[in-house]
Amino acid sequence: MERKLILITNDDGVQAQGINELSRLMLTLGDVIVVAPDSARSGAAAAITCTQAVTLRHRVDLEQDHLTVYACSGTPVDCVKLALEQVCPRRPDLLVSGINHGDNASCSIHYSGTMGAVFEGCMKGVPSVGYSLRTLSHHCDFSPYAADIVRIADFVLQQGLPQDVCLNVNFPEVARLAGMRVCRMGRGRWVQEWISANNPRGMNAFWLTGRFLNQEPHNEDTDYWALDHGYGSITPIKLDMTDYESLPLLAPLNF
Amino acid sequence: MERKLILITNDDGVQAQGINELSRLMLTLGDVIVVAPDSARSGAAAAITCTQAVTLRHRVDLEQDHLTVYACSGTPVDCVKLALEQVCPRRPDLLVSGINHGDNASCSIHYSGTMGAVFEGCMKGVPSVGYSLRTLSHHCDFSPYAADIVRIADFVLQQGLPQDVCLNVNFPEVARLAGMRVCRMGRGRWVQEWISANNPRGMNAFWLTGRFLNQEPHNEDTDYWALDHGYGSITPIKLDMTDYESLPLLAPLNF
Repeated sequence: MERKLILITNDDGVQAQGINELSRLMLTLGDVIVVAPDSARSGAAAAITCTQAVTLRHRVDLEQDHLTVYACSGTPVDCVKLALEQVCPRRPDLLVSGINHGDNASCSIHYSGTMGAVFEGCMKGVPSVGYSLRTLSHHCDFSPYAADIVRIADFVLQQGLPQDVCLNVNFPEVARLAGMRVCRMGRGRWVQEWISANNPRGMNAFWLTGRFLNQEPHNEDTDYWALDHGYGSITPIKLDMTDYESLPLLAPLNF
Repeated sequence: MERKLILITNDDGVQAQGINELSRLMLTLGDVIVVAPDSARSGAAAAITCTQAVTLRHRVDLEQDHLTVYACSGTPVDCVKLALEQVCPRRPDLLVSGINHGDNASCSIHYSGTMGAVFEGCMKGVPSVGYSLRTLSHHCDFSPYAADIVRIADFVLQQGLPQDVCLNVNFPEVARLAGMRVCRMGRGRWVQEWISANNPRGMNAFWLTGRFLNQEPHNEDTDYWALDHGYGSITPIKLDMTDYESLPLLAPLNF
């Protein structure tokens, strides 16, 4: 039987600890091709590079048996687009993105380069999973999550995912997970997001920061609740963003 | 009665023709504050700026009665975050983004800076609408769409929108619209996306391009069908990307 082919990307860059850990784990399931940004692209969402050429550099120094590595000057979505059209010898059996340093639960999914790459893989018909860890550290102990990361990837390799549906997996930073919960995306948003940056030329300049406001902290079926209570979260995400319930409300706008 | 306050942004930059046209139209409905990128940010999606300070510059040269204008060094989402927290004297009654030069129908919504800004406004509780025109030109005749742009904005000002739901409005480039259709987001994706860029140093370099593949060209209830047949499209979009139908399928992953 042909070995599985697994494409890996992230938004923290090809040298981040998270993607190296993810590569190590995926090598237990098949051949791995990494195409990842050449440096950090945090908060890249599903951005694409329209105004400059994107370069792709073979990183033989990072390779090993069954592992091929490329660094790309573009965004995480660019990486997936390039990988699928210019790098992979055939359509991968699985795309995994991460392990992101920082969670992508609740509304953070909208800003996430990790998940932007996952949407892209999903759109192109590749079963796709994003993994993120709620941590501020660049050096983490990923061992509490290793078994679940492999178990979820293996499930998706065996069962596939529904058309245009991908997975957003998040972990809390704990020594031992309370468990894994399949759950929905919680409602929340970031508040108090800017601090003024001193600037020698007197310009108005600001750094993005912020505090997450959970808008439904008591609902136990959300990703954010799971993370807050020591569980990993697994959320199915669909590409179709239509709000079907609102279609009748808007009927007066047909003209 | 207090005048309505309308926040405007875009991803083509503060000097694009589309945002100036949109400002002109919105001034018929209330006071306008523009906070837009200082140059083009096409394909920025909901990206945020994490690694540098963002500057905000007052553009008094572009102002007129009831119109305040700022240029921002960040992404469209940064513009909305800065506008709401640092610029607007109160929560705006409406956010409009665009008019984008290029449509954001079907899967293109995921890459769209125009719509990234709309998601952000929606997340912050401001009724939010994105407008896009299917054109490759930087100089367009927006007059066929003016009445519908105002009519939709006025509807949203009067009726509001459901919580966490925003609108994606797209127009075809026509002398006269066949009409406006409230419709869902169609299935599609971009293919043949890269052309090789000659490079003097022998690097692998590529330009992003591509051809849109409509995966359901015969379904008349999609945004893409509307545009292909001379109609404008109005699609309600929700921030909650959970695929509720898949939750039971994933139950084996609870652990």
